[in-house]
Amino acid sequence: MAPRKLNIACAGLGRMGARHALNFLNRTPRAQLVAAFTPDPREVEWARVHLEPSGVVIYTDYDEMLKHAGLEAVVIATVTTAHAENAIKAIEADKHVLCEKPLSTSVEISQSVVDAASRKPHLKVMCGFSRRFDASYRDAFDRVDSGAIGRPSIFRSQTCDKLDPSGFFVSYAEFSGGIFVDCNIHDIDLALWYFGQDSIVKSVVATGICALQPELRKHKDVDNGVGVVEFWGGKVAYFYSSRMMAAGQHDMTEIIGTNGKLAVNASPTGTLVEMHEPTGVRREIPHDYYGRFEYAFVTEANEFTAACLDNKRLPFKLSGAVQAVTIGCALQESLNSGQKINFDETGRRLEGSKL
Amino acid sequence: MAPRKLNIACAGLGRMGARHALNFLNRTPRAQLVAAFTPDPREVEWARVHLEPSGVVIYTDYDEMLKHAGLEAVVIATVTTAHAENAIKAIEADKHVLCEKPLSTSVEISQSVVDAASRKPHLKVMCGFSRRFDASYRDAFDRVDSGAIGRPSIFRSQTCDKLDPSGFFVSYAEFSGGIFVDCNIHDIDLALWYFGQDSIVKSVVATGICALQPELRKHKDVDNGVGVVEFWGGKVAYFYSSRMMAAGQHDMTEIIGTNGKLAVNASPTGTLVEMHEPTGVRREIPHDYYGRFEYAFVTEANEFTAACLDNKRLPFKLSGAVQAVTIGCALQESLNSGQKINFDETGRRLEGSKL
Amino acid sequence: MAPRKLNIACAGLGRMGARHALNFLNRTPRAQLVAAFTPDPREVEWARVHLEPSGVVIYTDYDEMLKHAGLEAVVIATVTTAHAENAIKAIEADKHVLCEKPLSTSVEISQSVVDAASRKPHLKVMCGFSRRFDASYRDAFDRVDSGAIGRPSIFRSQTCDKLDPSGFFVSYAEFSGGIFVDCNIHDIDLALWYFGQDSIVKSVVATGICALQPELRKHKDVDNGVGVVEFWGGKVAYFYSSRMMAAGQHDMTEIIGTNGKLAVNASPTGTLVEMHEPTGVRREIPHDYYGRFEYAFVTEANEFTAACLDNKRLPFKLSGAVQAVTIGCALQESLNSGQKINFDETGRRLEGSKL
Amino acid sequence: MAPRKLNIACAGLGRMGARHALNFLNRTPRAQLVAAFTPDPREVEWARVHLEPSGVVIYTDYDEMLKHAGLEAVVIATVTTAHAENAIKAIEADKHVLCEKPLSTSVEISQSVVDAASRKPHLKVMCGFSRRFDASYRDAFDRVDSGAIGRPSIFRSQTCDKLDPSGFFVSYAEFSGGIFVDCNIHDIDLALWYFGQDSIVKSVVATGICALQPELRKHKDVDNGVGVVEFWGGKVAYFYSSRMMAAGQHDMTEIIGTNGKLAVNASPTGTLVEMHEPTGVRREIPHDYYGRFEYAFVTEANEFTAACLDNKRLPFKLSGAVQAVTIGCALQESLNSGQKINFDETGRRLEGSKL
Repeated sequence: MAPRKLNIACAGLGRMGARHALNFLNRTPRAQLVAAFTPDPREVEWARVHLEPSGVVIYTDYDEMLKHAGLEAVVIATVTTAHAENAIKAIEADKHVLCEKPLSTSVEISQSVVDAASRKPHLKVMCGFSRRFDASYRDAFDRVDSGAIGRPSIFRSQTCDKLDPSGFFVSYAEFSGGIFVDCNIHDIDLALWYFGQDSIVKSVVATGICALQPELRKHKDVDNGVGVVEFWGGKVAYFYSSRMMAAGQHDMTEIIGTNGKLAVNASPTGTLVEMHEPTGVRREIPHDYYGRFEYAFVTEANEFTAACLDNKRLPFKLSGAVQAVTIGCALQESLNSGQKINFDETGRRLEGSKL
Repeated sequence: MAPRKLNIACAGLGRMGARHALNFLNRTPRAQLVAAFTPDPREVEWARVHLEPSGVVIYTDYDEMLKHAGLEAVVIATVTTAHAENAIKAIEADKHVLCEKPLSTSVEISQSVVDAASRKPHLKVMCGFSRRFDASYRDAFDRVDSGAIGRPSIFRSQTCDKLDPSGFFVSYAEFSGGIFVDCNIHDIDLALWYFGQDSIVKSVVATGICALQPELRKHKDVDNGVGVVEFWGGKVAYFYSSRMMAAGQHDMTEIIGTNGKLAVNASPTGTLVEMHEPTGVRREIPHDYYGRFEYAFVTEANEFTAACLDNKRLPFKLSGAVQAVTIGCALQESLNSGQKINFDETGRRLEGSKL
Repeated sequence: MAPRKLNIACAGLGRMGARHALNFLNRTPRAQLVAAFTPDPREVEWARVHLEPSGVVIYTDYDEMLKHAGLEAVVIATVTTAHAENAIKAIEADKHVLCEKPLSTSVEISQSVVDAASRKPHLKVMCGFSRRFDASYRDAFDRVDSGAIGRPSIFRSQTCDKLDPSGFFVSYAEFSGGIFVDCNIHDIDLALWYFGQDSIVKSVVATGICALQPELRKHKDVDNGVGVVEFWGGKVAYFYSSRMMAAGQHDMTEIIGTNGKLAVNASPTGTLVEMHEPTGVRREIPHDYYGRFEYAFVTEANEFTAACLDNKRLPFKLSGAVQAVTIGCALQESLNSGQKINFDETGRRLEGSKL
Repeated sequence: MAPRKLNIACAGLGRMGARHALNFLNRTPRAQLVAAFTPDPREVEWARVHLEPSGVVIYTDYDEMLKHAGLEAVVIATVTTAHAENAIKAIEADKHVLCEKPLSTSVEISQSVVDAASRKPHLKVMCGFSRRFDASYRDAFDRVDSGAIGRPSIFRSQTCDKLDPSGFFVSYAEFSGGIFVDCNIHDIDLALWYFGQDSIVKSVVATGICALQPELRKHKDVDNGVGVVEFWGGKVAYFYSSRMMAAGQHDMTEIIGTNGKLAVNASPTGTLVEMHEPTGVRREIPHDYYGRFEYAFVTEANEFTAACLDNKRLPFKLSGAVQAVTIGCALQESLNSGQKINFDETGRRLEGSKL
């Protein structure tokens, strides 16, 4: 008899949603994609071709989908503004949840998801910080954890996207929460991972520019941002995010400790091919985030599935998502106010820093 | 209704066999692993734990396995000496076949598999040249094919394994066909791919040493080999194989054309982590062939499955396996005779070269 | 008849001074090292062995050295606190001056050197920003200047020294002006070079930690610093400096423009040797600043000499040294006050930012 | 009083000669370039501008130059066919000699230089194997010598020039001795250095193609050559040379030992700049041999000068130049005959191999 599989549904079939749906369909042996939801007619069309032939039932109503017989889990990849509501409904319907990051661009709303989850401790509820599943970041973490670099002290990380000249990013910025919440959220989460989830922020300051897309200003956003986060206890993380890379996606991280340093993806590469041409030696690099992290998403799907089926602990806590958004929002606020924001040793914001 | 899946069996559950079995079980959505064969009690034990719970029927008799109801295809990963017989039996039982390389260490026996397959043109019979499915080698091929480097003229390729101090390689050498047939077969196949499958060998010469394992001599083998193959029409391929790399697996290839060069894996890497330590900057590299080519094997399984289900052409011809073994055997002969072997423009061996 | 040579003296024969002296003696064909000054008996001893046999006259009194017959130029590599006084005296004695960076850790004193130089416009007075003479930085500048990356917008640069466990850095910190003035001064100067010398600072903020050397706190310094400098006109530079690198010196820079990015020394290397060892692939990197920039110093000596002999323009203006120190001091102040410092569009400091 | 300098003359002022002249003039503090010889009116013109103003006397008669008062040493960079005669005359005139490689393309003539030198044991006579002075090759040698890679067993090395579409190489080939003598001579010399100067050749075989310049065939040469040299005692060296690289000069070497491997210049680079462009990440590499080895030539000049002045041993023996040419000529012969050439354990050629 074949082993039990996790019955899962995918909510949202946009760019990332379609990838999640296919990963759960084809690359997650212990999961069975049984349902999918999208309100978008074009995405429904796509699902008719790519999912329905495999027995996946398509829904255009999220609540209906949650009632799908035998459904055990939901992966949420709807628009960011719907994440929290979708997640809370799923939790209340007693489903395990894998929610794309961020839970919400609002700290309070993010917290409400954590609260909902804490009322159902038997459920697995995870925020999809994909880099936590990347082989290179895990390799780096294991080394840090084993003491290979001494005490991690300085953390540098960047999320840099290839320029999309279509202007998509401008319209997207209206709901993205801003570059620090949308892009650097990954880097912030990594900082908390490597420095320790109990790290307490001491100060936050950010700046940025609209180098190519001045229209971002109307959404209080930028296309290049630099932020610095001090933690109590002598640790500093600094971040860069950009939406105008020429060559492709270049996400990189350095963890600098008292005995050594780890660099993740300092020299970006795509395939292992180098081209020797009259203009020199050239290599191509991934064009987008998924090109860099495809296998991390597959691992994420498989580990989430295993945790649900085997009632194992998830690799990280849901509350970390609130911590990361809190820092991201503070950076975004600092970007717009021009002020440095300070916190006391309990993590409480100092009023003086608002002036 | 779920889409039709290819019912496949895996013959041989040794190191590579177990990987094939798991890949067809878990990472090949359109295939269903229904049966597995191994005569080895320890491998049977492994299969009871890892395959049987998923509904795979275990056989200790190959002929019985071929009679498994509904079986459509077989992946053959038994010992090299059994490849051909297993493949021919499967073909005669009307099964599609994916056979690990080489078909045989004998040119004649390899040819007999091709002959068997040609009598069943409706079957898909493929020799598992895994590098043909590697993203980097495909990227390089597409560039060559598009004319990016002009006319490919010089080809350099190496297969270099990490030293295995257990002595396994020595006992293995008794049946491996020798280092040029066992290791460089991949490089030879690549040369034929990039130079064109209709390339005709002009001469073959090889040498080698037993740097660490003098006992290899009794099997007429070496632990480091260098071979040069001239093709008619002004093309040269040269090869290196080694069994004593310190750092790990380092397979690399250069294709040099009249307008440029492509290098595949010139700077070997494992994960994207670099370690900055008091002794310098260090990176780890894959420890074995599978560490380098894992995803190529997954792609191989999926493309073979699709070709069977959709009756599409395989990406390369079975007869290429005979060409590659022919060259590999000639190199091995040259290694042992110390003679260069010459061929005329039709590929017929020149007698003089035997003296 | 041999061509005229520039008669030059070297003031200070410590680590950098000795290198300057030897470079002018042996690697600057158009210069003649005629004199050297040091008050330090051990340095005098060194000079007796390495300089005197080549006809260099050793002085223990700086003023006496300035009177050396036929002396035309002085390279100043005394302790930082003496730079300005030495430089001004040399200028007043009508000598060309190449002064090690910084002119002074004080903005006002630095300015006094510029003022002295402006009263003697026929003299060549240069601050030794060695990276301006480095082949890689020049290559990058030429590309930026030719428009290769569009409008340079984000600048990241770091000066990271290998850990010196002797504690030297702590005592040195008393007079160094702090990590942003001592280390990042180079990066700041590069930012002004690539962004344009007329860039006006909008804000400055810095933070840092004493990860390994808490005693630095008594000199108001840190062993790891992060600083962000905003310029009016939509440009941001951010800096990192460290005194605790494990592997060696790693100074790197990225210039990010609207059409592309240039990275200088992203993957640090020493010689071209890579070692494949059982622990992986390793390379060594330069142990100190001079190991990385040796040839830049040689070029600096030769170009300074040529400018003096041929009355050509120096490659950059002396006043840039004041700009760089001003920014470095502001970063150091921000580090210690915890405040962000703002400037108006004329570069005038905003009072509010002092609160 | 200034220290004594070595009075040296430069014979030949072509591309390499001019570089040698300027290196001895400007970058070799202990040498004094006093004379230069060239029969070529354009080179004389160049010398009038670049050498004469520094007091160098220009000769158009080599014998006259040798009589220059006080001359102690000669660097020979005339056409290859004149090397040996020039060197022998200089030796007989009691001058130290630094002769560009090869001494001659003929083994016998090369030996005659060695014989001449052995009659004047007080003279320093060196063949300019520039790579022996390269920091990376020296680093690699020191590691091999210290046992870092165990017993060196396999040696791979290539000399690959950027394509020169002017056709220069074709006319040059008439006198160059062929690609194995002209290009791979460096790699052969390195093999002897790393394997030990007392290594005895067991067999030699070579092949090659005219990929772009079929006219080379009339000079019995090729534009791409592959050669394999077996040494008695279980060592193999294999070589590649090319005249059609697109990106630039790429000379690289691997020394593979029983415990590890050293790679020299596996990833060629020019400056430390990497360009991130819409087509990917690109770097430029040196365009010619001098771009790669400039500082090795400077070191060569300085060490040769020091050996002459201080009567110290040269870093390697002159007889090695005969060994290298012997192997190079054998490879060239094998290329043209299509035969493998064998040698007995005393290094004597086996007649059978001529058939």
